[in-house]
Amino acid sequence: MRQITTDQLDDIALGAAVLGTGGGGDPYVGKLMAQAAIARHGPVTLLEAGDLDDGDLVIPGGMMGAPTVMLEKVPAGREIGTVIRALAAYLGRPVAATMSPEAGGINSTIPIAAAAELGLPLVDADMVGRAFPELQMCTPTLYGVPATPLAVADDKGNSAIVTATDNRWAERLARSLTVDMGCWAMVALYPMTGRQVKETCIHGTITLLARIGCTIRAARARHEDPVAAVCAVTKGRVIWRGKVVDVARRTAGGFVRGEAAIAGVEADAGRTLRIAFQNEFLLARAGDEVLATTPDLITVLDAETGEPITTETLRYGHRVVVLRLPGDPRWRSPAGLRVVGPEYFGYDVPYRPAEQRAVAGVGSN
Amino acid sequence: MRQITTDQLDDIALGAAVLGTGGGGDPYVGKLMAQAAIARHGPVTLLEAGDLDDGDLVIPGGMMGAPTVMLEKVPAGREIGTVIRALAAYLGRPVAATMSPEAGGINSTIPIAAAAELGLPLVDADMVGRAFPELQMCTPTLYGVPATPLAVADDKGNSAIVTATDNRWAERLARSLTVDMGCWAMVALYPMTGRQVKETCIHGTITLLARIGCTIRAARARHEDPVAAVCAVTKGRVIWRGKVVDVARRTAGGFVRGEAAIAGVEADAGRTLRIAFQNEFLLARAGDEVLATTPDLITVLDAETGEPITTETLRYGHRVVVLRLPGDPRWRSPAGLRVVGPEYFGYDVPYRPAEQRAVAGVGSN
Repeated sequence: MRQITTDQLDDIALGAAVLGTGGGGDPYVGKLMAQAAIARHGPVTLLEAGDLDDGDLVIPGGMMGAPTVMLEKVPAGREIGTVIRALAAYLGRPVAATMSPEAGGINSTIPIAAAAELGLPLVDADMVGRAFPELQMCTPTLYGVPATPLAVADDKGNSAIVTATDNRWAERLARSLTVDMGCWAMVALYPMTGRQVKETCIHGTITLLARIGCTIRAARARHEDPVAAVCAVTKGRVIWRGKVVDVARRTAGGFVRGEAAIAGVEADAGRTLRIAFQNEFLLARAGDEVLATTPDLITVLDAETGEPITTETLRYGHRVVVLRLPGDPRWRSPAGLRVVGPEYFGYDVPYRPAEQRAVAGVGSN
Repeated sequence: MRQITTDQLDDIALGAAVLGTGGGGDPYVGKLMAQAAIARHGPVTLLEAGDLDDGDLVIPGGMMGAPTVMLEKVPAGREIGTVIRALAAYLGRPVAATMSPEAGGINSTIPIAAAAELGLPLVDADMVGRAFPELQMCTPTLYGVPATPLAVADDKGNSAIVTATDNRWAERLARSLTVDMGCWAMVALYPMTGRQVKETCIHGTITLLARIGCTIRAARARHEDPVAAVCAVTKGRVIWRGKVVDVARRTAGGFVRGEAAIAGVEADAGRTLRIAFQNEFLLARAGDEVLATTPDLITVLDAETGEPITTETLRYGHRVVVLRLPGDPRWRSPAGLRVVGPEYFGYDVPYRPAEQRAVAGVGSN
């Protein structure tokens, strides 16, 4: 059992940006919320999943919607706490702990704020191991754990408790409400027992995020290559280096969808890497050659600083390095691929593990 | 305190079709549901609003969505009971009675089925005095009574409890869920105290519907003009006689929208009446001349039988009579017109009371 203080938030947010794979919302917004909440209420206790009692009620909570819009309408810190409390009241049981829904983006740092507001411990775990755009894309789904009842609320005072027949229906109904509510909303979902958290979730998330962030920071301090540091700590591999030459982006159906084009350099001069995204980067290909697909992680870093770049901060002329990180083994299983594989997202590309795919000419490292 | 038996259902359904003003869903579907429920559980007690205790919890319940789709996916009788029960459970209080949300269409007869299923009395009242397409269009809105918490559910097992900041937000959120759920859903809404029902609702609804239906039936039995009988009992006036020459209809945003064209006869030969609808008939005009607008009722009857015709049963060649009935005085007030006047629906036509508008050449009766 450890404490999360404001000192660790920079590293956690940096790690969350790496695993956010371009989406998941800017973790720095969540970091600011967590800073304010810890300043008000004191440090947050970080609980290992194994320390939960089997019967404990755990309610993960975070944000749902289009990250681009989230940045324009920054949420207030206490709202996530309110929606978690509303779901607990509906269930008629006390909450023992909260948890990050996903390991990437804003949903890794916001739950720290929620935990501080609620005076609850935060479980050192999450339900995705990265960021993914739809709410059924959580490992508990693979074990038949329902995402509902879930609570969704906006900043105006509108809210709903949704009960669905399966987790794709939960996504569909919650997504429509999110769109109505202004394209983002607070959500508390997958209420679970301690036992379910132990059996169905990804453990050690916050610790991993802090380690990734710490590694990048240390590399920078020692004037070493931060990109190599990220690769070392995440088992990542560089698949492309180049310059952003185009970004097409639109907010539709409660998501940010689009494509970024990155012109290659050196051995890849004259070739272009195209990365498709739906909130998160999902598919990277150069011409006919697929270099990475979901559920493996595609992360874009600033070539100089190693700073992760989100889909909404990608800009023409940006010099970047593209990494490929292996996804969680559960997502790489046939059952996992049905939920988050490239075909689910509409790409006519069969999944092949990252290790079996090529990297570009400049990618050796 | 009276009993509703299966004997009265034909008259109530017929009356509900007249006040349904073309929308509200086919009351005969609700009649079949009510017949089955009364056969199973016995007659339903009809309670005057004045007989409610001030503190009683009353929960109106019915259907929401596009009537056209409702006819293709007929609901099962016990589902409305389930959604009313879910809202009561959420409120943590026992329900004393249920009520029809509106006086027209399927929502006048379905609550009889719900009352039988739940073993509850039905209040002889409603919240509209006719049918209207959106859920904030209920007289309690004019008194500041919230439509939420409301419960919405489909026939697959998906459901939600919605809490909104105002009744237009309630409509917006519930409508999105309804669209997701297959364009119609069961809804329990405007949970009210007995006192609120007494002060904000329209009383005597079921009695009125039965009287309208009975009058038409009696006229037919005596070989008298059923259209004249409808006019007599509703203070209605014939504004057009003719033949349906065109119907354009589309289901969009959870509504059925469209326009019907009715070629005039005799003195109106060569002229065409156009009736615009959003679930219900809302505006009738011949050329530049507006003959009737919401909130006054526009009802289309079969010229021979006096049978009311819904937007989904309008067919080319149908010989019809168009009636105009005065709307409830509350809807004709400035506050009422802001909620249901022609301008709210996007028609650039100021409201004028029915009595001050013209009728067509053949409309004298």
